[in-house]
Parts: sequence; structure tokens; C-alpha cells
Amino acid sequence: MNVLLVYAHPEPRSLNGALKDFTVSRLEAAGHSVQVSDLYAMNWKASLDARDSTGAPLGDRFDPSLDSKHAFENGLQSEDIALEQKKLLWADALILQFPLWWFSMPAILKGWVERVYAYGFAYGVGEHSDARWGDRYGEGTLAGKRAMLIVTTGGWESHYGARGINGPIDDLLFPIHHGILYYPGFDVLPPFVIYRTGKMDEMRYAATCETLGQRLDNLWTAPPIPFRPQNAGAYEIPALTLRADIASGNTGFALHHIQSCESQSP
Amino acid sequence: MNVLLVYAHPEPRSLNGALKDFTVSRLEAAGHSVQVSDLYAMNWKASLDARDSTGAPLGDRFDPSLDSKHAFENGLQSEDIALEQKKLLWADALILQFPLWWFSMPAILKGWVERVYAYGFAYGVGEHSDARWGDRYGEGTLAGKRAMLIVTTGGWESHYGARGINGPIDDLLFPIHHGILYYPGFDVLPPFVIYRTGKMDEMRYAATCETLGQRLDNLWTAPPIPFRPQNAGAYEIPALTLRADIASGNTGFALHHIQSCESQSP
Repeated sequence: MNVLLVYAHPEPRSLNGALKDFTVSRLEAAGHSVQVSDLYAMNWKASLDARDSTGAPLGDRFDPSLDSKHAFENGLQSEDIALEQKKLLWADALILQFPLWWFSMPAILKGWVERVYAYGFAYGVGEHSDARWGDRYGEGTLAGKRAMLIVTTGGWESHYGARGINGPIDDLLFPIHHGILYYPGFDVLPPFVIYRTGKMDEMRYAATCETLGQRLDNLWTAPPIPFRPQNAGAYEIPALTLRADIASGNTGFALHHIQSCESQSP
Repeated sequence: MNVLLVYAHPEPRSLNGALKDFTVSRLEAAGHSVQVSDLYAMNWKASLDARDSTGAPLGDRFDPSLDSKHAFENGLQSEDIALEQKKLLWADALILQFPLWWFSMPAILKGWVERVYAYGFAYGVGEHSDARWGDRYGEGTLAGKRAMLIVTTGGWESHYGARGINGPIDDLLFPIHHGILYYPGFDVLPPFVIYRTGKMDEMRYAATCETLGQRLDNLWTAPPIPFRPQNAGAYEIPALTLRADIASGNTGFALHHIQSCESQSP
């Protein structure tokens, strides 16, 4: 299988750098093909702007959505963007690896998403009708592929627990899992999170690699997070609110996971 | 009062550009002093890296935290970072204005946070002991100041409602409100969010400015989001989990808001 690893850390001789090398080796040893987009090494342009098209602006002012659509449809995207899209289409699985900075991905990786996720490629795909609201949230250009995060953080696991002060890690990552990965169609695996990176010694590093290695071995078989597809009947269209008879009275991100008890109902 | 507006949109002749100009005018007409950090116009460097210090790396490899601390403590920060910190210290209120891209702030603004929020300035402040875990979450360098988001999005309000498919807007913004603004001490006001920006005509724009104007008039008096301070007894230290007798059985981001009923308890 083909794996694209998009990696965002400025120092190769870091924990993240070592884990990146380990990940590539493990996947290649299992016979997979791996491409790495090492964003810092590539000097990736982080900020989305009018220079992302090689053509003239469509109108008298730059429109981030419409100019993205125009560039995508007419082969006018800047070369770095088109190349990353090609890698995404090649890949059977995508891994995003990064340190959690201020409770989200580093700016350079956020800029990869913003620029590579063009209108017509990752959003604005499919028809809008009474029964569908585009091909997104479970459908789209990248449907059938898998994705997983590898995330490091200096904080303790309890700080990111159900009652931890930072907020639960699954909720902090929901905008990435659901809003960035599930949105254009990926099946999203539970994240691999390494806490308290300041306390990493050789023994703990070996154990971390052991666990990560198992996660990589199971990349193709592990069950994804059971997000609800948008167009399969659970959501009212066009309000896109979850039907009142599903998980009644609940709110919040967890609402968008299919609960195991639901599959029992008629 | 002094207001710093940090603004992230690539096109001045956009809805965001118009709202930025309106905001500055309204605040200045009320007698306030305003500085604008227009990140795209400034060509703000988005990616945190070793060049953020004018000195040599502290060790044999770049460490994002320790090199940030060293640069901050020794006056070695790059000039653009030091200047933004000076603006933050000058300001009585901070406004972050941006279009919601992939359910978070644009990369260029995330990079402003990562680079300006130096170790010793916005994190790693204060003592760690049995009773305190640093000056953060309600305490810190920026305590006593207020902050507010102005956010635009193409999606409908119902898509961001309590049961909307994108997730509730308050939960999507929690990592920014709590993790980026409350963390170094800001009192955080409820956000001003404009939905469905593709359907903005002159009448709706006038009504939007009217409402935004009122929010700006009330910047100094509106009650902030009642986040729980870290070191005032609600959290166990060092686990930093909310005490079991507070909001028992609940989980999720809302746990970190003081509920109105709690103030009644002994």
C-alpha cells in the first residue's frame, strides 16, 4: 500500500524526527511505499494567498474560494500545491505527524491543509440538492483512504483527560479528525498521542516505538472512528442538524460518532 | 483604552477588510487608541523556526521551547516578535479577526500565536509547586486584559449549532478561547461570529455592523466567558483534573465554565 506522511517539526534531531524515521522504516519493512512531505525541510509556504495561482485573479479582488476553484479547474495551481494533491491521490493512507502547539497543529501544517485542500478537490465537491449537501463528511475525493494522526505534547495525559484542564484530547483533535480528515472522505483512525515528551528516556522511547509499530501494522485493519456520514439520512438537509430522534438530548462533538447501541435499533 | 486588532485576511477589499475598517473607526470614534497588526499586509512569517532568535542556538539542535526561552530572556528575539509582544503589553484589549478556515484560524494567525507567545512571555510563567502549576489559565503576563474574536464563515448558523454537523461553534473555538487567550491571562468575551458570508447584501451588512458596533461599545463591560482559574482550588494539582465534587459526572469543554448554579453553593 502507499502511505503519505506529512510531517511538521523544525528540528530533524528531535523526538518527532526520530519517530518520523521509525515510522518510515516500519512501513517500508512491511512492504509499503512511503512518501514524506517534510514541510520544514521543503520550506513549505504556509500562508494562502493570490500567489497560489499562476494565473491572473478571476475578479478584481482575490477570493480565497473562487480563485482556488478557478486555479484547480484550469491547471493554474502553483506547482507545490498540485504536487501534494498528486501525493494524496497516490496514497492509500495519510499520516499527519506534528507536535501539538497551542492545542492544534503547527501553522506550517495548517497552511498545507489550507493550500492543498483546493475548492473542487477537498471541498465544493458534488451536487447540492434536497437529499445531499455535496460530497463531504464521509464522501469526497479522498473517500476509501485512511488517515491517522501522530501527535506529541509536553503536557500530561491527565491534563488531556475527560476532566483535564486542557480539555479532552479527542475533543481538541475533533476539528482535525472530523473537519479536516473525515470532511474530504478519509476514514479516520484513533490518534497516536505521546504525552509528557520532556520525560522521554531510552526505555520509554523503545516502548513508544513498540506501541507505535503495532498501530502502523494495524493501519489497514483497525476500525476507524465511527463518524456519521452526512448524506446517509442522519442529518436534516439543508439545516445539517442531527435528526431529533438520534441521540436525543445530547450535544457536543461526541454526537457525531455512531454509538454502538444504535446499530441495534431498527 | 488601547486596543490591538490582529487581522488575518489576504484581500483588503473583502467582507473581512470592511469589518476591520469599521471596527477601527468605531473604536477610535469612542476615543480609544487602536493598533492593527494586518498579518498579510505585514507579510508575517508564519512558521516558527530557529531564525526566530538572532542568537546562536542554545544547544546542538533547535528546541522550540528552550530556544524561545533563551531568546526571550536575553533580548535575542527577532524584531517582529518583540514588536508584537510590545503591542500586547500596550493593549487593554486584543481582538483577533479572521475567516474560519478548516474550523480554526488561518495558518498565518496561528503562526503569529506560535512565534509571539514565547516561553517566559505567554507560557512557562510563574512557579510550579503543590499549590500552583505556573501562572496560566486566568493568570499570567496578559491578566487583566480582555480579548474577543471576530470570525466569519461561509457555513450556516445551524451547521454550527448544538446538534449541527460541524460541531458547536463554542466547542470549535474552545481551543482558541481557553487554550490561546485564557491561558496567558486574558478575560475572554463571547465571540462575534458572522455566518453564511456568501449571502451578504447591503442591508445585512448594515445590520451586521450595527450589532458588531454594540459589541465593541460593550468591550469593557460585557461579562467574559466564566472559565475556571487553574490555581483557585477547582483543579487537583498536578493532575489538573477538575475536582470530583464539581460538575460531577460531566465531561467535555463545558466543564471548564463556572455554572451559574455553582456560585450558590457554600
